[in-house]
Amino acid sequence: MSFLTNRNSILETLREHPEKVRKLWVEAGHERASEEYIKEAKLKGIQFKILPKEAFARRFKEGRSHICLERDEISYADPDELIRCIDAAKNPFYCALDGVYDPQNLGNIVRSAACLGAEAVVIPKDRSCGITGTVTNIARGAVEHVKIIRVVNLARFIDEMKGKGIFCYALDERGAKPLWEIDLKGPVCLVFGGEDGLRRLTIERCDAVVKIPTLEGFPSLNVATIFAVAAYEVKRQRRAEG
Amino acid sequence: MSFLTNRNSILETLREHPEKVRKLWVEAGHERASEEYIKEAKLKGIQFKILPKEAFARRFKEGRSHICLERDEISYADPDELIRCIDAAKNPFYCALDGVYDPQNLGNIVRSAACLGAEAVVIPKDRSCGITGTVTNIARGAVEHVKIIRVVNLARFIDEMKGKGIFCYALDERGAKPLWEIDLKGPVCLVFGGEDGLRRLTIERCDAVVKIPTLEGFPSLNVATIFAVAAYEVKRQRRAEG
Repeated sequence: MSFLTNRNSILETLREHPEKVRKLWVEAGHERASEEYIKEAKLKGIQFKILPKEAFARRFKEGRSHICLERDEISYADPDELIRCIDAAKNPFYCALDGVYDPQNLGNIVRSAACLGAEAVVIPKDRSCGITGTVTNIARGAVEHVKIIRVVNLARFIDEMKGKGIFCYALDERGAKPLWEIDLKGPVCLVFGGEDGLRRLTIERCDAVVKIPTLEGFPSLNVATIFAVAAYEVKRQRRAEG
Repeated sequence: MSFLTNRNSILETLREHPEKVRKLWVEAGHERASEEYIKEAKLKGIQFKILPKEAFARRFKEGRSHICLERDEISYADPDELIRCIDAAKNPFYCALDGVYDPQNLGNIVRSAACLGAEAVVIPKDRSCGITGTVTNIARGAVEHVKIIRVVNLARFIDEMKGKGIFCYALDERGAKPLWEIDLKGPVCLVFGGEDGLRRLTIERCDAVVKIPTLEGFPSLNVATIFAVAAYEVKRQRRAEG
């Protein structure tokens, strides 16, 4: 069970996945501001409840939005299914995250993935934050738009993707070539390290290591920022062509 | 007076601006892990103090880093000085933020500005978050690398920059052209809207409105993300040439 307080996430879930919604809670006195949500819930036959201010605050600590949606856990997509679908996909754009534990970063990455057209985000089971309520709220409904795939062994999954013709590029400061010199128009998976950087094991499986050139001697970019920049570069190269 | 708890920010300030440091506080039991900082403080003749755990926690609520630096407020750079220096600068790259109130966003923007080579961040006095301790901590020391300029009237400042030959581009979803179709190799200032988007007044002063194309019908990118993507595009165009 998971609780959403971000209004975009709530509306997105009510519209796209009403079957996953359990209940909508609204704080008394805020029915007017939540009209759109209540209407959508009624339309979809979803139970909703008005709670007095105190009860609402007691139940949902993070109550600044005065509305809360109770929903089923986010379901992860099937890794084998992703591999099977590669042949049919036209130049798929996937990404993999190795060691992103911060829910703020993961939420922002999923949000940017949806905006910029990455179709799947692959995370290792033991080296990643899960899709928690915080992640879902920060992603602003984007978890419904991007396939999120949990794998036991990321290095092996990279091998499987490579076997299906996907080029896997690790994004890392130690990379020799800048991102813009790489052809990203074909099928690609970009691989990012989390708060502690990429493991050698993961880097070695990739076809090449590329970097986003930044000012030397200065603390590096945040992983969610690197992700967005890289996803933009993929989009730029593909659009600029078409 | 401002308090830094982020270790990168602390080290950066000790090294680059010891004259702005008042005192370094270390939590008892964490002297070893803070050796580098204490050494730097001693070297620069800065007073440091070891505080017992309880006293440290009482004084600095956000105590996870077990170290805190007390420093003078960040000083803003002079707007007139920036305008005067434009003639001598070779293809300056500035940016302006209209209505970024979230310290997390502002901190991330300043961090990305330093990494990707934006020389100045212009903010309006009445429509922006200030450079608070939170901003400084999130920026990881980057506030020392980027000129931060507060202006009374942003629209007028844009006019002044244009008068000096700077091309001012507003980044907005309503823009006709994608960012990658704009020549950003000359002197430019990119203008970003905050949490509520760009005001018409600001947009109208700009030379053109450009967008980062994203998936339709989906909540837009976060302003700090848009900033990083745009700064990357400037860097890409300039480096790719040189």
